[in-house]
Amino acid sequence: MTAPSPAPNGAPLRVALLGCGTVGSAVLRLLADQADDITARVGRPVQVAGVAVRRPDRHPEVPAELLTTDAHALVTSPDVDLVVEVIGGIEPARSLMLAAFDAGKSVVSANKALLADDGVALHAAAAEAGVDLYYEAAVAGAIPLLRPLRESLAGDQLTRVVGIVNGTTNYILSRMAETGAGFAEALAEATELGYAEADPTADVDGFDAAAKAAILASLAFHSPVTAADVYREGISAVSSTDVARATEIGCTVKLLAICEKVSGADGDAIAVRVHPAMIPTSHPLASVGGAFNAVFVEAEAAGQLMFYGQGAGGEPTASAVLGDLVAVARNRVAGVAGPGTTAYAGLPVAPMADTPTRYHVSLDVADKPGVLATVAQEFAAQGVSISTVRQDGAGEAATLVIVTHRAPDAALSATISRLREMPAVRAVTSVLRVEGLS
Amino acid sequence: MTAPSPAPNGAPLRVALLGCGTVGSAVLRLLADQADDITARVGRPVQVAGVAVRRPDRHPEVPAELLTTDAHALVTSPDVDLVVEVIGGIEPARSLMLAAFDAGKSVVSANKALLADDGVALHAAAAEAGVDLYYEAAVAGAIPLLRPLRESLAGDQLTRVVGIVNGTTNYILSRMAETGAGFAEALAEATELGYAEADPTADVDGFDAAAKAAILASLAFHSPVTAADVYREGISAVSSTDVARATEIGCTVKLLAICEKVSGADGDAIAVRVHPAMIPTSHPLASVGGAFNAVFVEAEAAGQLMFYGQGAGGEPTASAVLGDLVAVARNRVAGVAGPGTTAYAGLPVAPMADTPTRYHVSLDVADKPGVLATVAQEFAAQGVSISTVRQDGAGEAATLVIVTHRAPDAALSATISRLREMPAVRAVTSVLRVEGLS
Repeated sequence: MTAPSPAPNGAPLRVALLGCGTVGSAVLRLLADQADDITARVGRPVQVAGVAVRRPDRHPEVPAELLTTDAHALVTSPDVDLVVEVIGGIEPARSLMLAAFDAGKSVVSANKALLADDGVALHAAAAEAGVDLYYEAAVAGAIPLLRPLRESLAGDQLTRVVGIVNGTTNYILSRMAETGAGFAEALAEATELGYAEADPTADVDGFDAAAKAAILASLAFHSPVTAADVYREGISAVSSTDVARATEIGCTVKLLAICEKVSGADGDAIAVRVHPAMIPTSHPLASVGGAFNAVFVEAEAAGQLMFYGQGAGGEPTASAVLGDLVAVARNRVAGVAGPGTTAYAGLPVAPMADTPTRYHVSLDVADKPGVLATVAQEFAAQGVSISTVRQDGAGEAATLVIVTHRAPDAALSATISRLREMPAVRAVTSVLRVEGLS
Repeated sequence: MTAPSPAPNGAPLRVALLGCGTVGSAVLRLLADQADDITARVGRPVQVAGVAVRRPDRHPEVPAELLTTDAHALVTSPDVDLVVEVIGGIEPARSLMLAAFDAGKSVVSANKALLADDGVALHAAAAEAGVDLYYEAAVAGAIPLLRPLRESLAGDQLTRVVGIVNGTTNYILSRMAETGAGFAEALAEATELGYAEADPTADVDGFDAAAKAAILASLAFHSPVTAADVYREGISAVSSTDVARATEIGCTVKLLAICEKVSGADGDAIAVRVHPAMIPTSHPLASVGGAFNAVFVEAEAAGQLMFYGQGAGGEPTASAVLGDLVAVARNRVAGVAGPGTTAYAGLPVAPMADTPTRYHVSLDVADKPGVLATVAQEFAAQGVSISTVRQDGAGEAATLVIVTHRAPDAALSATISRLREMPAVRAVTSVLRVEGLS
């Protein structure tokens, strides 16, 4: 372990860039374009000492003398003061980050997977070395979000963070609502337009959003949360019927990352989950369309806040990386480390089964007297209270649209299982959780 | 000048609170309620050393031994490490702040008037003393905005900041749109409900928004801007006709604070203005209703961002004050000052006459052939290009609804003056600037 020694007075700060894909090359461009402004803001010039890539021949835009394939030698070089990690993935990013800390260097990262997986250990390593680990770009791209959570709201108590943090799924759901298309069709369109990757699993199955939810929950509630702790459902099961039903009840379907404080028998806990949900069209998140991200925050004193902007893309992500780079560079010049992330609250993560949620359920039932009573009884038997029911009869068949009050998720899913077995229920046509109703 | 000496290890940090109105008493309450969390976040307990008020007998909720009428003695007391100023107004707030800096104490303030009036000198005094001056609460209440502008976006170039930063006027305009009421009626309702003060001048005439615009422009463009530099029009001249015309063209009327970089013959400048404007209902700011605030930011790399939340009220404002207090307390413990505000860019403020704006104009005209041509000629004569015209005839009279392209504001207002004198124009029924149209 080496304590950070301030760079000599006035000497440029030297940055190692790990990775030079879409984000890395935008970082290089912005560093060059804004050299004077960054110098003014940091108090010293910030220069690129080297760029570690796997295949130097693929980066003709980078001066050859900066390129190296030996990332480890670069981060540990005495010529390097700060490290920007935009490789992504777990390894070699983790080893390089730890080597940087060990050499007394602060790290700016955009790596949500790594931070969600191993944030506690990485923060501990940075703290032990007395250096910074900043990663604004890891969640919601350009939107200044992590710094407000960990600094601006440091005098408040957060109760809930609800975000649209994945642009691909938001685009697909927006298109389903606009065109009436099914999931497969909307996904095909997104792939064609470049909004979805060739293998869309990480996005559509909610892995990307779950990693971001873990990071948000850790910061918001000062507790260790990893991606594995996050309950996760993707959007591939969302049907055009779900979307149509949402419209009928004044809602829209979004893939939400939800982190909230819940109180259970054993005291406070955190519920962290990613799943599609209906939200009222009047909710500030409802109008966040296309590839945009937004995060809605509730705090005890501040009340409701929302942060909105571009969640992906080279330039927006590079903007967040550079904001962090200016901060860690300033800290380096001052010879201090910025506020770290603390897990002092140490709240446990509540199981999804115990997490209170609300459901919307649409049923095709026989249009006979007593069906509603039978159905209602099934909810009551599971301890689930019904908020609203709408019954539309047409000949022999009728439709029941039910929205429940909050109940433990397990009680709700048990109710749905029972409904599917009831003779009076011909089909359960749509089941989706509901969020943001008062 | 005294350099800040870190408080002895582990000793509580002692805070002087200046003022104990709505915000001050909320600060006291939050400090007490969240003592453990704040200790964990700062690394030391944060305690109230004293509360300076004018009339101690009016604060039975504050322990008597904390109350004092001698604010100057309190801020300069060796028992005080940090100062929270929530008195508001210019004096004695300014003298107390300078005394605090001189005694080596960081200050957290919610004072928009003072910061907008004298920010440059105050920042210089804080920098010279090596202490912090933070004032997140001065603009848009609880919304984390100044810290993102001065830190998160420090690696980007801002091009435009457009905000709804005054809840009173936003409430009045929202009600005018919802009910068709005129300004006077909506103001009366706002006063009755406590959303407008008995003397609503500061809000409805745009002084409050102009102070906030000056602060935003200074931070966004690293240039000195005071409230006196801000072009200002309030909402008292907004008529129910203006609101109705806005609806007709798919817009809504908002009081906007606009700070943008403009390029003129002499190089870059900043335009800073507060005035009512029509914005498209599809714009993210359009749906910001009631007493909420929101600030829309455009940056070269980050693209479009929006920050939304409560802009006033004791608890929301206190949340912002406490976030700053935790930051300056951490800096104090580390023995450093946080990033100050820089005015290195030193851009001049462009006169309103030169600032490019767009106008909506509605005219009652005689329904005779050639009237549109005559009117259009008047725009052309002033060098103003028309974007859209809608002509609705009814008998002898017709209505012309015109939206222009961008032109220097002076050319637009000159055009309006000329139109008022034209025989063919019976009445200019509505004139309002338009923002946010592509």
